Amino acid sequence: MKFPEFINICEVGPRDGLQNEATILSVEDKVELIERAVDAGYKTIEIGSLVHPKAIPSLADTEEVFKRLKLHEDIEYRALVTNLRGVQRAVNAGVQKVKLTVSASESHNLSNFNRSTMETIDQFKACISFASENNIEVSAAISTAFGCPFEGSISIERIESVIEKLIELGVNEISLSDTTGMANPRDVYEKCNYMIIHYPEIKWNLHFHNTRDMGLANVLAAMNAGIVNFDAAFSGIGGCPYAPGATGNLCSEDLVHMCENMGIKTGVDIDKAIQLAKRVREMIGHSTESYMLRAGKSSDLIKEKPVRQINE
Amino acid sequence: MKFPEFINICEVGPRDGLQNEATILSVEDKVELIERAVDAGYKTIEIGSLVHPKAIPSLADTEEVFKRLKLHEDIEYRALVTNLRGVQRAVNAGVQKVKLTVSASESHNLSNFNRSTMETIDQFKACISFASENNIEVSAAISTAFGCPFEGSISIERIESVIEKLIELGVNEISLSDTTGMANPRDVYEKCNYMIIHYPEIKWNLHFHNTRDMGLANVLAAMNAGIVNFDAAFSGIGGCPYAPGATGNLCSEDLVHMCENMGIKTGVDIDKAIQLAKRVREMIGHSTESYMLRAGKSSDLIKEKPVRQINE
Repeated sequence: MKFPEFINICEVGPRDGLQNEATILSVEDKVELIERAVDAGYKTIEIGSLVHPKAIPSLADTEEVFKRLKLHEDIEYRALVTNLRGVQRAVNAGVQKVKLTVSASESHNLSNFNRSTMETIDQFKACISFASENNIEVSAAISTAFGCPFEGSISIERIESVIEKLIELGVNEISLSDTTGMANPRDVYEKCNYMIIHYPEIKWNLHFHNTRDMGLANVLAAMNAGIVNFDAAFSGIGGCPYAPGATGNLCSEDLVHMCENMGIKTGVDIDKAIQLAKRVREMIGHSTESYMLRAGKSSDLIKEKPVRQINE
Repeated sequence: MKFPEFINICEVGPRDGLQNEATILSVEDKVELIERAVDAGYKTIEIGSLVHPKAIPSLADTEEVFKRLKLHEDIEYRALVTNLRGVQRAVNAGVQKVKLTVSASESHNLSNFNRSTMETIDQFKACISFASENNIEVSAAISTAFGCPFEGSISIERIESVIEKLIELGVNEISLSDTTGMANPRDVYEKCNYMIIHYPEIKWNLHFHNTRDMGLANVLAAMNAGIVNFDAAFSGIGGCPYAPGATGNLCSEDLVHMCENMGIKTGVDIDKAIQLAKRVREMIGHSTESYMLRAGKSSDLIKEKPVRQINE
């Protein structure tokens, strides 16, 4: 197995995490979480979505959040957008990077955007031109790349048809997203290998949900194929709208912890990441999926002898 | 990455799972769970512990459970034992296989057995002779092989000192156990690689807990090193006496599901495994860590369109 020396984690909690929460946080709370993420050492942060407020009401204040942030030069703040209006809002607010999202699966794209995958990508042309004219960086995310909750498995050919279009439009950074946690390590390994070999010029990112507990195993498979950029959400929030009660995004602090234990640098302070996760839990007012919050780090040794028992 | 064609899962729920439950199940209930596990396709089942009833009161009826089972020739039923008395009880009850357990960590062994690691192994000599005279198969488990909650990391040298002693005594099947969920994939990969290269004559088994969500990632790392035998517990029960509120053993049906998705055969019917996990949950009367029970299989496609939302 090959393990990288370093991986970069994009903290997507403020966007993909909070968007699924029943409690809508205040601008102040969101600013606090993002600034704590910066302080913990995350260098890439998805601060929110610039989409129609009716689509994601909990993130309707993304511009306001961004304006109140104390910006750091070495941090990449990015926002999710789905159309030209979103890019215009990014320009107006001063957000330097946007992520366009489209689904590899036709039916999931229809469900998300009410149009076909290719129609969605066609719309990206104007978005990318406008972004380029305004010196805004663009990345893209391909949802349901490892399975669609309506259609099932998604072939490499199908993903490739989307990638080719995105490259034609000048995109050079692409995230493959496991939207509903259907990815398995073999599929991840094979797809990542393929992508790195066929599209070495692309900066690849992987976005996993831990819906079926394969999140960290999928990271391991992706790292083994050479992927070094991953999304994760503080406290493991996010949920899955297609499976009520299911777990959410890959949990940031659990990922940082695994990497730290494996000698893979993330640049993130695990203790600060855990404190951030606790703060998230306080703000949203319910327990979360974070294993660090339940069990603590492997290195948290115990001093007291527990009741004698026979443990294997 | 290398993936095996087939792995064998030992269902340890009746032993390492139930021993940590507050609710003590009846003999009938335990028999039902074991027979359902057989029906689901598990070929190796740890039916209980033959230890002092005060040490694990919830498993004090292991002989009775075994006597009431409808035995199948192709199933390996095994019981955990810690001393000669346990082996004698196995012989009397007709249990054909026992697992001796010892901890790689001195302080954990003291906590478990009130004596040193080497003193424990010395006691194994009489156990193994008696077992051999009575045609009982013996395997061994080395606890805390990937970390001790009192001492921290455990070196290969330390484990090897235990292995050498076990081999001297004639043991040819050894489980490396991650007792409190401290294993990480790199450590697992390196230790498994080492063991397979240096002790190819040993049948290796890996026993993980999912305390810090690395269970399936650790299986992936172990499989990649060539390991094909794994323990797991139905519904993910088991807990961790050193971290209250922490999750338990690697969850059987989640492991079966991952393997099925990866094209790795387990011989287990995933739907029956999920039904078994539900039955466990009913019997113990509380929710469990099973991801399958929360989210269902990746292949459970949905027909209804959910409320529109933007999901990456």
